[in-house]
Amino acid sequence: MIAVDWGSTSLRVFRLDASGHVREQRRSARGIHAADGRFADVLRAEIDGWDDPLIVMAGMVGSRQGWVEVPYVDCPAGLAGIASALQRLPADAFAGREVWIVPGLRSRDDSGACDVMRGEETQLCGLLGELAPQRQTVCLPGTHSKRVTLADGRIERFATAMTGELFELLCSHSVLGRLMRPGEHDADAFAQGVAHAARAGDLLQHLFAVRTLGLFDALRPEQLRPFLSGLLIGHELNDLPADAGRVHLVGAASLLAAYTAALALRGHAAQAHSELASAHGCHALARQAGLLA
Amino acid sequence: MIAVDWGSTSLRVFRLDASGHVREQRRSARGIHAADGRFADVLRAEIDGWDDPLIVMAGMVGSRQGWVEVPYVDCPAGLAGIASALQRLPADAFAGREVWIVPGLRSRDDSGACDVMRGEETQLCGLLGELAPQRQTVCLPGTHSKRVTLADGRIERFATAMTGELFELLCSHSVLGRLMRPGEHDADAFAQGVAHAARAGDLLQHLFAVRTLGLFDALRPEQLRPFLSGLLIGHELNDLPADAGRVHLVGAASLLAAYTAALALRGHAAQAHSELASAHGCHALARQAGLLA
Repeated sequence: MIAVDWGSTSLRVFRLDASGHVREQRRSARGIHAADGRFADVLRAEIDGWDDPLIVMAGMVGSRQGWVEVPYVDCPAGLAGIASALQRLPADAFAGREVWIVPGLRSRDDSGACDVMRGEETQLCGLLGELAPQRQTVCLPGTHSKRVTLADGRIERFATAMTGELFELLCSHSVLGRLMRPGEHDADAFAQGVAHAARAGDLLQHLFAVRTLGLFDALRPEQLRPFLSGLLIGHELNDLPADAGRVHLVGAASLLAAYTAALALRGHAAQAHSELASAHGCHALARQAGLLA
Repeated sequence: MIAVDWGSTSLRVFRLDASGHVREQRRSARGIHAADGRFADVLRAEIDGWDDPLIVMAGMVGSRQGWVEVPYVDCPAGLAGIASALQRLPADAFAGREVWIVPGLRSRDDSGACDVMRGEETQLCGLLGELAPQRQTVCLPGTHSKRVTLADGRIERFATAMTGELFELLCSHSVLGRLMRPGEHDADAFAQGVAHAARAGDLLQHLFAVRTLGLFDALRPEQLRPFLSGLLIGHELNDLPADAGRVHLVGAASLLAAYTAALALRGHAAQAHSELASAHGCHALARQAGLLA
């Protein structure tokens, strides 16, 4: 089968064998915005030469702006619940091949406020197959980081932090970014940022420390970017309970290193998982739905 | 005399009479960045026709990137302390006229971390002349909002929140901004934002509510901008003590209205002061320094 992770700004495709191992993978920048409605054409080009009859897709391709909108499934949700909500494209949508889209998930906090994900649920489905069924804490770092609680073999709840997007915005467009100079990763400045995030005060105030610490030479211009990275990741982790136990991470290697370091500074062990968790999750969902022979 | 508020991106000049009333004022976008080192030329053009012999300037014109760098004065600081640190430009710097630059202020929090302001201290000097000497809380909303405590007729301490800058960044460059549509100011959406800011969780998480509330039609696209405004101002006000009493505001009229509304929603009375406080502060400093006949 073919697993597809089709987000706003990127497209990744994976070819899996019958036992669920990833044999080939490709990626491109042709996210759903760049696809501009020509989803079948873009997908055909991307999986050129792969003739597998079953395709399972996740991500913004199932959103209102995507190929078809697939309604969110409410948490708690396990493999069975998500698999039963897979939505099949019409048979003629992609040259007669069987194409399914994975639903996104919706989580409500204690006040009833909603949070959503599209795409990350396949990473979580992959993890569900790897981890023991007791309560687990998962972080999926990224543009919109997800903190997830797994329990009883299901995705119990999650919350989104705009850590990655804010970091990019501040580096690229703010007065803080203009003070920065590129440099090697600086673990000490990063750690200072993580520590600063635990102080009293709001993020709105803490951000200004990037300026003042630079102004009084407590940080060199090339240390401001790692400091800001630590500050934002530290804020994301501020409400992580002390008894969260080992935190499971799925994401790009550079992010995993940063989050592992930040978690260690806060006294938490971390376990990094392969980004292939997403493809494994698609495979697990297909098997659960009876789509694999 | 002439009072000058010369910031990074704007230049305001005020002509005051002997009793300290503002008789004329002008503003331009020729901040210190646009001045590009030609400070005397820019100032000469801006005050064309005003022949007053005394000029008192405040703002980034006294920073490392300004006309001359004037060292920060440490808080607590009153009129006397700030006036004694006014720095005079060389007599030949501006055609023999007497030009002084007001120092910025530096404040340390309980952990020893520094915060700074340049320019706002003249607004505070203006307020010191208006308010009773007991403890007072002041908010100076803006790109970098300042929360200030006045006590015993001095500026006791302050902290900066990057509220305005973050609002502009998120509206202009983030995924949230792309969901927004322009519209009338919406007091209800603004109030929802202020209330949301008081929930458990970090700003990084709360920001994502702009997306989820839009997604599930709890807010219309034209309500997202006022909601975000309320959310950020609410965060800025989260650590305002319940016993802060009446909060004094100095700033642009639209900001004063928003902050007055947010403060009312949090149970605080607000008192708005004229933006001319800055010019009045320059006058008070000049008088204190014995520069006025």
